[in-house]
Amino acid sequence: MRNIKLTIAYDGTNYKGWQLQKNGTTIQGKIEEAIEKTFKKKHRIYSAGRTDSGVHAQGQIAHFKTSVPVPMNKIPSIINTVLPPDIAIKNAKKVSTDFHAQFDAKQKHYRYYILNSLKREAFKERYAWRVSYNLNVSLMREAAKALIGKHDFKSFQAVDKRERLSVRNIFSITVKKQKAFIVIDIKGDGFLYNMVRNIVGTLVEIGRGYFSPESMMEILKSKNRKKAGPTAPAKGLFLMEVKY
Amino acid sequence: MRNIKLTIAYDGTNYKGWQLQKNGTTIQGKIEEAIEKTFKKKHRIYSAGRTDSGVHAQGQIAHFKTSVPVPMNKIPSIINTVLPPDIAIKNAKKVSTDFHAQFDAKQKHYRYYILNSLKREAFKERYAWRVSYNLNVSLMREAAKALIGKHDFKSFQAVDKRERLSVRNIFSITVKKQKAFIVIDIKGDGFLYNMVRNIVGTLVEIGRGYFSPESMMEILKSKNRKKAGPTAPAKGLFLMEVKY
Repeated sequence: MRNIKLTIAYDGTNYKGWQLQKNGTTIQGKIEEAIEKTFKKKHRIYSAGRTDSGVHAQGQIAHFKTSVPVPMNKIPSIINTVLPPDIAIKNAKKVSTDFHAQFDAKQKHYRYYILNSLKREAFKERYAWRVSYNLNVSLMREAAKALIGKHDFKSFQAVDKRERLSVRNIFSITVKKQKAFIVIDIKGDGFLYNMVRNIVGTLVEIGRGYFSPESMMEILKSKNRKKAGPTAPAKGLFLMEVKY
Repeated sequence: MRNIKLTIAYDGTNYKGWQLQKNGTTIQGKIEEAIEKTFKKKHRIYSAGRTDSGVHAQGQIAHFKTSVPVPMNKIPSIINTVLPPDIAIKNAKKVSTDFHAQFDAKQKHYRYYILNSLKREAFKERYAWRVSYNLNVSLMREAAKALIGKHDFKSFQAVDKRERLSVRNIFSITVKKQKAFIVIDIKGDGFLYNMVRNIVGTLVEIGRGYFSPESMMEILKSKNRKKAGPTAPAKGLFLMEVKY
Protein backbone atom coordinates (compact mmCIF):
# COMPACT_ATOMS: atom_id res chain seq x y z
CA MET A 1 0.00 0.00 0.00
CA ARG A 2 1.60 3.27 -1.13
CA ASN A 3 0.71 6.59 0.45
CA ILE A 4 0.74 9.31 -2.22
CA LYS A 5 1.02 13.04 -1.62
CA LEU A 6 -0.46 15.26 -4.32
CA THR A 7 0.23 18.96 -4.91
CA ILE A 8 -2.84 20.50 -6.54
CA ALA A 9 -3.72 23.84 -8.18
CA TYR A 10 -7.25 24.90 -8.95
CA ASP A 11 -9.31 27.83 -10.08
CA GLY A 12 -12.08 27.64 -7.48
CA THR A 13 -14.58 29.86 -9.33
CA ASN A 14 -16.79 27.09 -10.62
CA TYR A 15 -16.67 24.84 -7.54
CA LYS A 16 -18.49 24.60 -4.25
CA GLY A 17 -15.17 24.40 -2.44
CA TRP A 18 -12.90 21.46 -1.73
CA GLN A 19 -15.08 19.13 0.29
CA LEU A 20 -17.43 16.49 -1.17
CA GLN A 21 -21.08 17.52 -1.17
CA LYS A 22 -24.31 15.85 -2.08
CA ASN A 23 -25.32 18.81 -4.21
CA GLY A 24 -22.75 20.75 -6.16
CA THR A 25 -19.46 20.05 -7.83
CA THR A 26 -16.40 20.12 -5.59
CA ILE A 27 -12.65 19.82 -6.13
CA GLN A 28 -12.43 16.70 -3.97
CA GLY A 29 -15.32 15.18 -5.92
CA LYS A 30 -13.68 15.87 -9.27
CA ILE A 31 -10.32 14.45 -8.18
CA GLU A 32 -11.83 11.32 -6.62
CA GLU A 33 -13.82 10.77 -9.83
CA ALA A 34 -10.66 11.20 -11.90
CA ILE A 35 -8.70 8.75 -9.72
CA GLU A 36 -11.54 6.25 -9.95
CA LYS A 37 -11.62 6.52 -13.75
CA THR A 38 -7.88 6.13 -14.18
CA PHE A 39 -7.07 3.71 -11.32
CA LYS A 40 -10.31 1.73 -11.93
CA LYS A 41 -10.96 1.76 -8.21
CA LYS A 42 -12.52 4.14 -5.67
CA HIS A 43 -10.10 6.02 -3.40
CA ARG A 44 -10.71 8.55 -0.64
CA ILE A 45 -8.40 11.57 -0.65
CA TYR A 46 -7.60 13.81 2.34
CA SER A 47 -6.54 17.44 1.96
CA ALA A 48 -4.53 19.79 4.15
CA GLY A 49 -7.62 21.93 4.51
CA ARG A 50 -11.06 22.44 3.06
CA THR A 51 -10.96 25.55 0.94
CA ASP A 52 -14.29 27.29 0.75
CA SER A 53 -16.56 27.80 -2.25
CA GLY A 54 -14.80 30.05 -4.76
CA VAL A 55 -11.37 29.95 -3.09
CA HIS A 56 -8.40 29.10 -5.34
CA ALA A 57 -5.24 27.08 -4.72
CA GLN A 58 -1.74 27.06 -6.14
CA GLY A 59 -0.45 24.52 -3.65
CA GLN A 60 -3.18 22.50 -1.98
CA ILE A 61 -1.88 19.20 -0.60
CA ALA A 62 -3.81 15.94 -0.40
CA HIS A 63 -2.93 12.31 0.22
CA PHE A 64 -4.45 8.95 -0.64
CA LYS A 65 -3.47 5.33 -0.17
CA THR A 66 -3.50 2.90 -3.03
CA SER A 67 -2.45 -0.59 -3.99
CA VAL A 68 -2.91 0.13 -7.71
CA PRO A 69 0.56 -0.08 -9.33
CA VAL A 70 0.55 3.15 -11.39
CA PRO A 71 4.13 4.49 -11.87
CA MET A 72 4.61 7.52 -9.59
CA ASN A 73 5.93 9.86 -12.30
CA LYS A 74 2.89 9.17 -14.52
CA ILE A 75 0.29 9.91 -11.86
CA PRO A 76 -0.09 13.68 -12.46
CA SER A 77 -0.50 13.42 -16.22
CA ILE A 78 -2.81 10.39 -16.02
CA ILE A 79 -5.17 12.02 -13.53
CA ASN A 80 -4.98 15.41 -15.31
CA THR A 81 -6.17 13.82 -18.54
CA VAL A 82 -9.61 13.24 -17.07
CA LEU A 83 -9.76 16.29 -14.79
CA PRO A 84 -11.42 19.51 -15.97
CA PRO A 85 -8.83 22.08 -17.15
CA ASP A 86 -9.26 24.31 -14.08
CA ILE A 87 -7.87 21.62 -11.75
CA ALA A 88 -4.27 20.44 -12.12
CA ILE A 89 -2.27 17.83 -10.24
CA LYS A 90 1.14 19.51 -10.20
CA ASN A 91 3.08 16.77 -8.47
CA ALA A 92 2.76 13.27 -6.95
CA LYS A 93 5.23 11.91 -4.44
CA LYS A 94 5.49 8.76 -2.37
CA VAL A 95 5.40 9.52 1.35
CA SER A 96 5.60 7.41 4.49
CA THR A 97 2.43 5.44 5.26
CA ASP A 98 1.68 7.54 8.34
CA PHE A 99 1.77 10.89 6.50
CA HIS A 100 -1.51 12.80 6.82
CA ALA A 101 -2.08 15.95 4.71
CA GLN A 102 -4.19 17.65 7.38
CA PHE A 103 -2.76 16.52 10.71
CA ASP A 104 0.92 16.81 9.75
CA ALA A 105 0.68 20.32 8.28
CA LYS A 106 3.10 22.69 10.04
CA GLN A 107 2.51 25.88 8.06
CA LYS A 108 -0.05 27.19 5.63
CA HIS A 109 0.51 30.14 3.37
CA TYR A 110 -2.51 32.04 2.09
CA ARG A 111 -2.38 34.97 -0.32
CA TYR A 112 -5.12 37.52 -0.90
CA TYR A 113 -5.34 39.82 -3.93
CA ILE A 114 -7.10 43.18 -3.65
CA LEU A 115 -7.48 45.10 -6.91
CA ASN A 116 -7.45 48.68 -5.64
CA SER A 117 -8.94 50.46 -8.60
CA LEU A 118 -11.93 52.47 -9.69
CA LYS A 119 -11.70 50.69 -13.00
CA ARG A 120 -13.25 47.35 -13.65
CA GLU A 121 -10.85 44.81 -15.18
CA ALA A 122 -12.68 42.04 -17.04
CA PHE A 123 -9.81 39.55 -16.68
CA LYS A 124 -8.82 40.27 -13.08
CA GLU A 125 -12.09 40.40 -11.20
CA ARG A 126 -12.22 36.63 -11.10
CA TYR A 127 -9.05 36.41 -9.00
CA ALA A 128 -9.19 39.53 -6.84
CA TRP A 129 -11.51 41.64 -4.73
CA ARG A 130 -11.86 45.02 -6.42
CA VAL A 131 -12.00 47.81 -3.85
CA SER A 132 -12.62 51.23 -5.38
CA TYR A 133 -11.84 53.55 -2.46
CA ASN A 134 -8.19 54.40 -2.16
CA LEU A 135 -6.43 52.18 0.41
CA ASN A 136 -3.47 53.32 2.50
CA VAL A 137 -1.06 50.39 2.40
CA SER A 138 1.17 51.74 5.19
CA LEU A 139 -1.74 51.83 7.62
CA MET A 140 -2.71 48.27 6.66
CA ARG A 141 0.87 47.10 7.14
CA GLU A 142 1.14 48.75 10.53
CA ALA A 143 -2.16 47.25 11.70
CA ALA A 144 -1.27 43.76 10.47
CA LYS A 145 1.67 43.57 12.89
CA ALA A 146 -0.72 43.23 15.83
CA LEU A 147 -1.81 39.84 14.52
CA ILE A 148 1.62 38.23 14.41
CA GLY A 149 2.22 35.60 17.07
CA LYS A 150 0.06 33.24 19.08
CA HIS A 151 -3.38 34.71 19.76
CA ASP A 152 -6.97 33.74 20.26
CA PHE A 153 -8.45 34.69 16.89
CA LYS A 154 -12.10 34.41 17.94
CA SER A 155 -12.79 37.92 16.55
CA PHE A 156 -11.92 36.66 13.07
CA GLN A 157 -13.78 33.37 13.17
CA ALA A 158 -17.03 32.78 11.27
CA VAL A 159 -19.89 33.04 13.76
CA ASP A 160 -21.71 29.99 12.41
CA LYS A 161 -18.69 27.66 12.37
CA ARG A 162 -16.94 28.09 15.69
CA GLU A 163 -14.15 25.78 16.71
CA ARG A 164 -13.55 24.89 20.33
CA LEU A 165 -9.94 26.01 20.22
CA SER A 166 -9.49 29.32 18.49
CA VAL A 167 -5.84 29.98 19.33
CA ARG A 168 -3.60 30.04 16.27
CA ASN A 169 -0.04 31.15 15.61
CA ILE A 170 0.52 33.62 12.76
CA PHE A 171 4.17 33.56 11.68
CA SER A 172 4.08 36.50 9.29
CA ILE A 173 1.83 38.91 7.43
CA THR A 174 3.06 41.10 4.61
CA VAL A 175 1.07 43.74 2.74
CA LYS A 176 2.59 44.74 -0.60
CA LYS A 177 1.54 47.13 -3.33
CA GLN A 178 2.05 45.61 -6.80
CA LYS A 179 0.80 47.98 -9.51
CA ALA A 180 -2.99 48.18 -9.05
CA PHE A 181 -2.96 45.22 -6.65
CA ILE A 182 -2.47 44.98 -2.91
CA VAL A 183 -1.12 41.53 -2.11
CA ILE A 184 -1.50 40.19 1.43
CA ASP A 185 0.52 37.11 2.39
CA ILE A 186 -0.32 35.35 5.64
CA LYS A 187 1.58 32.38 7.02
CA GLY A 188 0.54 30.51 10.12
CA ASP A 189 0.24 27.12 11.76
CA GLY A 190 -3.44 26.97 10.88
CA PHE A 191 -6.48 29.12 10.28
CA LEU A 192 -10.03 29.21 11.60
CA TYR A 193 -12.97 29.12 9.24
CA ASN A 194 -13.03 32.43 7.25
CA MET A 195 -10.14 33.77 9.35
CA VAL A 196 -8.01 35.03 6.46
CA ARG A 197 -10.98 36.63 4.72
CA ASN A 198 -12.09 38.32 7.96
CA ILE A 199 -8.58 39.64 8.57
CA VAL A 200 -8.47 41.02 5.01
CA GLY A 201 -11.92 42.60 5.43
CA THR A 202 -10.67 44.31 8.60
CA LEU A 203 -7.44 45.47 6.95
CA VAL A 204 -9.51 47.07 4.18
CA GLU A 205 -11.55 49.00 6.77
CA ILE A 206 -8.24 50.24 8.19
CA GLY A 207 -6.79 51.03 4.76
CA ARG A 208 -9.74 53.19 3.84
CA GLY A 209 -9.61 55.00 7.18
CA TYR A 210 -12.82 53.68 8.69
CA PHE A 211 -10.93 51.91 11.53
CA SER A 212 -7.63 53.19 12.95
CA PRO A 213 -4.56 50.94 12.69
CA GLU A 214 -4.53 50.71 16.52
CA SER A 215 -8.02 49.22 16.46
CA MET A 216 -6.62 45.91 15.16
CA MET A 217 -5.20 45.12 18.62
CA GLU A 218 -8.51 46.07 20.29
CA ILE A 219 -10.48 43.93 17.84
CA LEU A 220 -8.17 40.97 18.50
CA LYS A 221 -8.47 41.39 22.27
CA SER A 222 -12.26 41.77 22.21
CA LYS A 223 -12.69 38.15 20.95
CA ASN A 224 -15.89 39.43 19.35
CA ARG A 225 -16.52 38.83 15.66
CA LYS A 226 -18.81 41.86 15.54
CA LYS A 227 -15.89 44.21 16.22
CA ALA A 228 -13.96 43.10 13.11
CA GLY A 229 -14.57 44.11 9.49
CA PRO A 230 -16.65 42.25 6.91
CA THR A 231 -15.63 38.94 5.29
CA ALA A 232 -13.62 39.60 2.12
CA PRO A 233 -14.95 37.74 -0.95
CA ALA A 234 -13.66 34.21 -1.62
CA LYS A 235 -12.46 34.98 -5.15
CA GLY A 236 -9.36 36.92 -3.99
CA LEU A 237 -8.04 34.10 -1.80
CA PHE A 238 -5.39 31.54 -2.78
CA LEU A 239 -3.95 28.68 -0.75
CA MET A 240 -0.33 29.01 -1.87
CA GLU A 241 1.63 26.39 0.04
CA VAL A 242 1.45 23.90 2.88
CA LYS A 243 4.62 22.95 4.72
CA TYR A 244 5.21 19.73 6.70
CA MET B 1 -28.71 62.39 -30.96
CA ARG B 2 -25.21 61.50 -29.78
CA ASN B 3 -23.20 58.69 -31.36
CA ILE B 4 -21.16 56.94 -28.68
CA LYS B 5 -18.10 54.74 -29.24
CA LEU B 6 -17.41 52.16 -26.54
CA THR B 7 -14.15 50.29 -25.90
CA ILE B 8 -14.97 46.96 -24.32
CA ALA B 9 -13.03 44.12 -22.67
CA TYR B 10 -14.50 40.71 -21.96
CA ASP B 11 -13.61 37.24 -20.85
CA GLY B 12 -15.50 35.27 -23.49
CA THR B 13 -15.44 31.92 -21.66
CA ASN B 14 -19.01 32.00 -20.43
CA TYR B 15 -20.59 33.58 -23.52
CA LYS B 16 -21.91 32.36 -26.84
CA GLY B 17 -19.88 35.03 -28.60
CA TRP B 18 -20.65 38.68 -29.30
CA GLN B 19 -23.80 38.52 -31.37
CA LEU B 20 -27.34 38.41 -29.97
CA GLN B 21 -28.92 34.97 -30.02
CA LYS B 22 -32.31 33.58 -29.18
CA ASN B 23 -30.73 30.87 -27.04
CA GLY B 24 -27.63 31.57 -25.03
CA THR B 25 -26.06 34.52 -23.31
CA THR B 26 -23.99 36.84 -25.50
CA ILE B 27 -21.82 39.90 -24.90
CA GLN B 28 -24.03 42.09 -27.09
CA GLY B 29 -27.09 40.85 -25.20
CA LYS B 30 -25.55 41.64 -21.81
CA ILE B 31 -24.45 45.14 -22.86
CA GLU B 32 -27.79 46.01 -24.48
CA GLU B 33 -29.53 44.81 -21.30
CA ALA B 34 -27.21 46.95 -19.16
CA ILE B 35 -27.78 50.03 -21.34
CA GLU B 36 -31.53 49.47 -21.18
CA LYS B 37 -31.43 49.21 -17.38
CA THR B 38 -29.32 52.32 -16.88
CA PHE B 39 -30.61 54.50 -19.74
CA LYS B 40 -34.24 53.30 -19.19
CA LYS B 41 -34.59 52.82 -22.93
CA LYS B 42 -33.72 50.12 -25.48
CA HIS B 43 -30.68 50.78 -27.70
CA ARG B 44 -29.10 48.69 -30.45
CA ILE B 45 -25.29 48.50 -30.38
CA TYR B 46 -23.01 47.69 -33.33
CA SER B 47 -19.56 46.17 -32.89
CA ALA B 48 -16.43 46.21 -35.03
CA GLY B 49 -16.77 42.45 -35.43
CA ARG B 50 -18.64 39.50 -34.03
CA THR B 51 -16.25 37.55 -31.90
CA ASP B 52 -17.05 33.87 -31.74
CA SER B 53 -18.18 31.78 -28.78
CA GLY B 54 -15.35 31.66 -26.22
CA VAL B 55 -13.19 34.36 -27.85
CA HIS B 56 -11.97 37.16 -25.55
CA ALA B 57 -11.48 40.89 -26.14
CA GLN B 58 -9.26 43.56 -24.66
CA GLY B 59 -10.32 46.23 -27.14
CA GLN B 60 -13.60 45.44 -28.88
CA ILE B 61 -15.26 48.57 -30.26
CA ALA B 62 -19.00 49.20 -30.52
CA HIS B 63 -21.19 52.24 -31.15
CA PHE B 64 -24.75 53.22 -30.34
CA LYS B 65 -26.87 56.30 -30.82
CA THR B 66 -28.80 57.81 -27.98
CA SER B 67 -30.81 60.88 -27.04
CA VAL B 68 -30.62 60.03 -23.32
CA PRO B 69 -28.56 62.80 -21.65
CA VAL B 70 -26.15 60.71 -19.55
CA PRO B 71 -22.82 62.56 -19.00
CA MET B 72 -20.17 61.01 -21.25
CA ASN B 73 -17.56 60.48 -18.50
CA LYS B 74 -20.08 58.60 -16.33
CA ILE B 75 -21.15 56.15 -19.04
CA PRO B 76 -18.51 53.41 -18.42
CA SER B 77 -19.03 53.24 -14.64
CA ILE B 78 -22.83 53.44 -14.93
CA ILE B 79 -23.07 50.59 -17.44
CA ASN B 80 -20.38 48.54 -15.63
CA THR B 81 -22.41 48.62 -12.42
CA VAL B 82 -25.05 46.39 -13.97
CA LEU B 83 -22.77 44.33 -16.24
CA PRO B 84 -21.43 40.96 -15.06
CA PRO B 85 -17.80 41.28 -13.82
CA ASP B 86 -16.33 39.54 -16.88
CA ILE B 87 -17.45 42.34 -19.21
CA ALA B 88 -16.04 45.85 -18.78
CA ILE B 89 -16.71 49.08 -20.64
CA LYS B 90 -13.23 50.61 -20.61
CA ASN B 91 -14.04 53.86 -22.32
CA ALA B 92 -16.90 55.89 -23.88
CA LYS B 93 -16.31 58.68 -26.36
CA LYS B 94 -18.53 60.92 -28.43
CA VAL B 95 -17.94 60.40 -32.17
CA SER B 96 -19.37 61.94 -35.32
CA THR B 97 -22.89 60.78 -36.15
CA ASP B 98 -21.72 58.87 -39.23
CA PHE B 99 -19.12 56.76 -37.35
CA HIS B 100 -19.77 53.03 -37.71
CA ALA B 101 -17.76 50.57 -35.60
CA GLN B 102 -17.78 47.86 -38.28
CA PHE B 103 -17.67 49.72 -41.59
CA ASP B 104 -15.10 52.32 -40.57
CA ALA B 105 -12.59 49.87 -39.06
CA LYS B 106 -9.20 50.21 -40.78
CA GLN B 107 -7.17 47.69 -38.80
CA LYS B 108 -7.87 44.87 -36.39
CA HIS B 109 -5.29 43.37 -34.10
CA TYR B 110 -5.80 39.82 -32.86
CA ARG B 111 -3.54 38.02 -30.42
CA TYR B 112 -3.35 34.28 -29.88
CA TYR B 113 -1.77 32.60 -26.84
CA ILE B 114 -0.34 29.09 -27.11
CA LEU B 115 0.82 27.55 -23.84
CA ASN B 116 3.60 25.27 -25.07
CA SER B 117 3.95 22.96 -22.13
CA LEU B 118 3.55 19.37 -21.10
CA LYS B 119 2.30 20.65 -17.77
CA ARG B 120 -1.26 21.64 -17.17
CA GLU B 121 -1.67 25.12 -15.63
CA ALA B 122 -5.01 25.46 -13.84
CA PHE B 123 -5.05 29.28 -14.17
CA LYS B 124 -3.81 29.60 -17.73
CA GLU B 125 -5.80 27.02 -19.66
CA ARG B 126 -8.77 29.34 -19.80
CA TYR B 127 -6.86 31.93 -21.85
CA ALA B 128 -4.52 29.83 -23.99
CA TRP B 129 -4.38 26.70 -26.11
CA ARG B 130 -2.05 24.25 -24.41
CA VAL B 131 0.04 22.35 -26.95
CA SER B 132 2.22 19.68 -25.40
CA TYR B 133 4.54 18.79 -28.28
CA ASN B 134 7.53 21.05 -28.52
CA LEU B 135 7.03 23.83 -31.08
CA ASN B 136 9.84 25.38 -33.10
CA VAL B 137 9.14 29.11 -33.00
CA SER B 138 11.69 29.95 -35.74
CA LEU B 139 9.90 27.68 -38.22
CA MET B 140 6.55 29.24 -37.31
CA ARG B 141 7.97 32.75 -37.72
CA GLU B 142 9.46 31.90 -41.10
CA ALA B 143 6.20 30.37 -42.35
CA ALA B 144 4.10 33.29 -41.12
CA LYS B 145 5.90 35.67 -43.50
CA ALA B 146 4.13 34.07 -46.47
CA LEU B 147 0.81 35.42 -45.22
CA ILE B 148 1.79 39.09 -45.04
CA GLY B 149 0.21 41.27 -47.72
CA LYS B 150 -2.96 41.14 -49.79
CA HIS B 151 -4.05 37.59 -50.52
CA ASP B 152 -7.10 35.46 -51.09
CA PHE B 153 -7.37 33.69 -47.72
CA LYS B 154 -9.94 31.10 -48.84
CA SER B 155 -7.72 28.30 -47.43
CA PHE B 156 -8.16 29.75 -43.94
CA GLN B 157 -11.89 30.44 -44.11
CA ALA B 158 -14.46 28.33 -42.27
CA VAL B 159 -16.07 25.98 -44.79
CA ASP B 160 -19.58 26.56 -43.51
CA LYS B 161 -19.42 30.37 -43.44
CA ARG B 162 -17.91 31.47 -46.74
CA GLU B 163 -17.86 35.11 -47.72
CA ARG B 164 -18.10 36.19 -51.33
CA LEU B 165 -14.91 38.20 -51.15
CA SER B 166 -12.12 36.37 -49.37
CA VAL B 167 -9.25 38.74 -50.16
CA ARG B 168 -7.78 40.39 -47.06
CA ASN B 169 -4.67 42.39 -46.34
CA ILE B 170 -2.47 41.21 -43.46
CA PHE B 171 -0.18 44.03 -42.32
CA SER B 172 1.97 42.04 -39.91
CA ILE B 173 2.34 38.76 -38.06
CA THR B 174 4.75 38.26 -35.20
CA VAL B 175 5.45 35.02 -33.35
CA LYS B 176 7.14 35.49 -30.00
CA LYS B 177 8.25 33.15 -27.25
CA GLN B 178 7.38 34.51 -23.78
CA LYS B 179 8.33 32.01 -21.08
CA ALA B 180 6.04 28.98 -21.60
CA PHE B 181 3.83 30.92 -24.03
CA ILE B 182 4.04 31.47 -27.76
CA VAL B 183 2.27 34.73 -28.56
CA ILE B 184 1.06 35.33 -32.12
CA ASP B 185 0.03 38.87 -33.07
CA ILE B 186 -1.81 39.39 -36.34
CA LYS B 187 -2.82 42.77 -37.71
CA GLY B 188 -4.87 43.21 -40.85
CA ASP B 189 -7.63 45.18 -42.51
CA GLY B 190 -10.13 42.45 -41.71
CA PHE B 191 -10.45 38.73 -41.15
CA LEU B 192 -12.67 35.97 -42.51
CA TYR B 193 -14.66 33.77 -40.18
CA ASN B 194 -12.22 31.58 -38.19
CA MET B 195 -9.29 32.95 -40.22
CA VAL B 196 -6.99 33.74 -37.29
CA ARG B 197 -7.72 30.42 -35.60
CA ASN B 198 -7.09 28.50 -38.84
CA ILE B 199 -3.80 30.33 -39.38
CA VAL B 200 -2.75 29.50 -35.82
CA GLY B 201 -3.76 25.85 -36.27
CA THR B 202 -1.59 25.73 -39.40
CA LEU B 203 1.36 27.44 -37.69
CA VAL B 204 1.20 24.80 -34.95
CA GLU B 205 1.41 22.02 -37.55
CA ILE B 206 4.51 23.75 -38.90
CA GLY B 207 6.00 24.33 -35.44
CA ARG B 208 5.72 20.68 -34.55
CA GLY B 209 7.25 19.63 -37.87
CA TYR B 210 4.20 18.04 -39.44
CA PHE B 211 4.11 20.64 -42.25
CA SER B 212 7.24 22.35 -43.64
CA PRO B 213 7.49 26.15 -43.35
CA GLU B 214 7.38 26.36 -47.16
CA SER B 215 4.01 24.63 -47.19
CA MET B 216 2.36 27.83 -45.89
CA MET B 217 2.72 29.45 -49.33
CA GLU B 218 1.34 26.33 -51.05
CA ILE B 219 -1.62 26.19 -48.65
CA LEU B 220 -2.38 29.86 -49.29
CA LYS B 221 -2.18 29.39 -53.08
CA SER B 222 -4.35 26.26 -53.05
CA LYS B 223 -7.40 28.23 -51.84
CA ASN B 224 -8.52 24.98 -50.28
CA ARG B 225 -9.45 24.83 -46.59
CA LYS B 226 -8.59 21.12 -46.49
CA LYS B 227 -4.90 21.85 -47.11
CA ALA B 228 -4.55 24.01 -43.98
CA GLY B 229 -4.25 22.88 -40.36
CA PRO B 230 -7.05 22.47 -37.82
CA THR B 231 -8.92 25.37 -36.23
CA ALA B 232 -7.19 26.46 -33.01
CA PRO B 233 -9.53 26.62 -29.98
CA ALA B 234 -11.39 29.88 -29.32
CA LYS B 235 -10.09 30.28 -25.76
CA GLY B 236 -6.59 31.39 -26.85
CA LEU B 237 -7.87 34.24 -29.06
CA PHE B 238 -8.11 37.91 -28.03
CA LEU B 239 -9.35 40.87 -30.08
CA MET B 240 -6.78 43.41 -28.87
CA GLU B 241 -7.48 46.62 -30.78
CA VAL B 242 -9.46 48.10 -33.63
CA LYS B 243 -8.12 51.17 -35.43
CA TYR B 244 -10.17 53.70 -37.41
